Amino acid sequence: MPLGEFGLIGRYFQRAALEQAGGHTKVALGIGDDAALLTPTPGCQWVISTDSLVQGVHFPEHYSPQDLGYRALAVAVSDLAAMAATPVGFTLALTLPAVDEHWLQAFSTGLAACATDHHISLIGGDTTRGPLNIGVSVFGEAPQGQALRRAGARPGDLLCVGGPLGDGAAGLAVVLEQGLPDNLAAPAREYLAARFWRPRAQCELGVALAGIASAGLDVSDGLLQDAGHLAGASGVALHIHGADLPCSAALRAWPAAQQREWMLRGGDDYVLLFTLPPEHAALVAQWAGQGWPVRVIGEAAAGSGVWLDGQATSGAGGYQHFKESKHG
Amino acid sequence: MPLGEFGLIGRYFQRAALEQAGGHTKVALGIGDDAALLTPTPGCQWVISTDSLVQGVHFPEHYSPQDLGYRALAVAVSDLAAMAATPVGFTLALTLPAVDEHWLQAFSTGLAACATDHHISLIGGDTTRGPLNIGVSVFGEAPQGQALRRAGARPGDLLCVGGPLGDGAAGLAVVLEQGLPDNLAAPAREYLAARFWRPRAQCELGVALAGIASAGLDVSDGLLQDAGHLAGASGVALHIHGADLPCSAALRAWPAAQQREWMLRGGDDYVLLFTLPPEHAALVAQWAGQGWPVRVIGEAAAGSGVWLDGQATSGAGGYQHFKESKHG
Repeated sequence: MPLGEFGLIGRYFQRAALEQAGGHTKVALGIGDDAALLTPTPGCQWVISTDSLVQGVHFPEHYSPQDLGYRALAVAVSDLAAMAATPVGFTLALTLPAVDEHWLQAFSTGLAACATDHHISLIGGDTTRGPLNIGVSVFGEAPQGQALRRAGARPGDLLCVGGPLGDGAAGLAVVLEQGLPDNLAAPAREYLAARFWRPRAQCELGVALAGIASAGLDVSDGLLQDAGHLAGASGVALHIHGADLPCSAALRAWPAAQQREWMLRGGDDYVLLFTLPPEHAALVAQWAGQGWPVRVIGEAAAGSGVWLDGQATSGAGGYQHFKESKHG
Repeated sequence: MPLGEFGLIGRYFQRAALEQAGGHTKVALGIGDDAALLTPTPGCQWVISTDSLVQGVHFPEHYSPQDLGYRALAVAVSDLAAMAATPVGFTLALTLPAVDEHWLQAFSTGLAACATDHHISLIGGDTTRGPLNIGVSVFGEAPQGQALRRAGARPGDLLCVGGPLGDGAAGLAVVLEQGLPDNLAAPAREYLAARFWRPRAQCELGVALAGIASAGLDVSDGLLQDAGHLAGASGVALHIHGADLPCSAALRAWPAAQQREWMLRGGDDYVLLFTLPPEHAALVAQWAGQGWPVRVIGEAAAGSGVWLDGQATSGAGGYQHFKESKHG
């Protein structure tokens, strides 16, 4: 259903669509008809994912609508990055308790900023009156047979992560102002809040992994839990070296035990976790030169489960988003 | 995000996915990874639409979860029919106040029945705890350049409708047991309730219209309002002959004025409304032979707006779904 039908509300979202309209010749028809039309690139498959955000589960009661607009799209686009797909378009299903022009203006501004950062166009959606609920479906393309799946890791592959871990959970602590260390400087605070509200999906890295990495996903539920998904789908064991986990300077303001807990079980990091066949090991240094802080944190081996410094871990007990009320 | 992550809930929906899995070789990867993969048919475009259903807006407080599962998907698939697209897959973003196994069993059964009826596969989604909200995104294919759009009608084209009008609104009256005529027989009651809860999207007719009809959409907001959308997008006037509107036997139990009001302004009919170049007029009789009760109800002319028996009408005042609280 076209956003354009809803006069007032459509106006706010046309902008996000228009800002990117020139970028995507694949969008043959966007907002304003019964459905959108996308023209595939020959030799590519479509990659599709859907997420919904609910207040009190995925974001706190107190929030900036502009940040929320950014985050709602970014977490969905991260699933495209996790599949090595190039983003193309997204739809928005927005349920709102009332028409609040200030809220819509701010939300659509954050959404447009995220769309611009990730080169993705709004192609349709609908708006309904009801308790706040934000549904985002994202569409991207990957060369036939090269999308990055959870299955495919083999014994001997290197286990790699695309960026620092634990910042999502620390960012949430900053947003909620819960248990912050006295030595947390203002720039670190801002960095972490932005890591929570404005995560940048690792799309460029994802595309570089197509046909190279053997398996991958994005870290949304916490390293151990997501590594468990990858190990299970691939039928391998994953061995993690605790000393090699990448930790941001900002996270170091917390005690070491808290750092480690968040790096292992924190969620909402939206960095890629993937396995790399050993013949591609040299790429890690190359990626660092391109500004992608990929780190080798372990390796795949025959067996099953996730192992930390030689100890078996339980895949369960991962982060449950904002509150522990997500179905698990 | 994969439904499979949510153990309990995923179990109910795997079935809907599986029942159709054999039917769609275009679904290269369904539920269970970060995203789904669809392989395009060469020479086709993807057609994409998103809808969300909210209790009290799109369906009454009292409902059968099985009917709701059917209806949630059918109304979304109707947007594919309106674009002359062949259904392929859908995602489900389900927000539920609690895990209720009885509800999930019934809802997924209705959803699976609708998926089977419309030859469409569940390819992914997510579930979240919160006030009930059902988001459905549907994906279909149409040959390049042949999707049916709202723009394209030309003066002289015939205005056609794919089936009876007013049944959706009468069906809602039956469901709510509001103002029912004494002479409404049980079979008519059942027929109308099914027209509300289990509408059948006109996909086969839609596909037959690709490259034939000049413009089209589905009647969801009421004939006059949807005709206004088509007239506006095409830049033509649409003249409707009141005496030619198709009325079901069941609807005739109401007084003539009520029949007419619902045929013109009732919503939720989910029949196709389209314009047919006069050289294709003979197809109408042919479609009747195939069981598609297409009726010519008027014609397009130079000018603008929607005209009923020579009188200008206002496109506004259409049906606002269950309650008049949808953003308009």
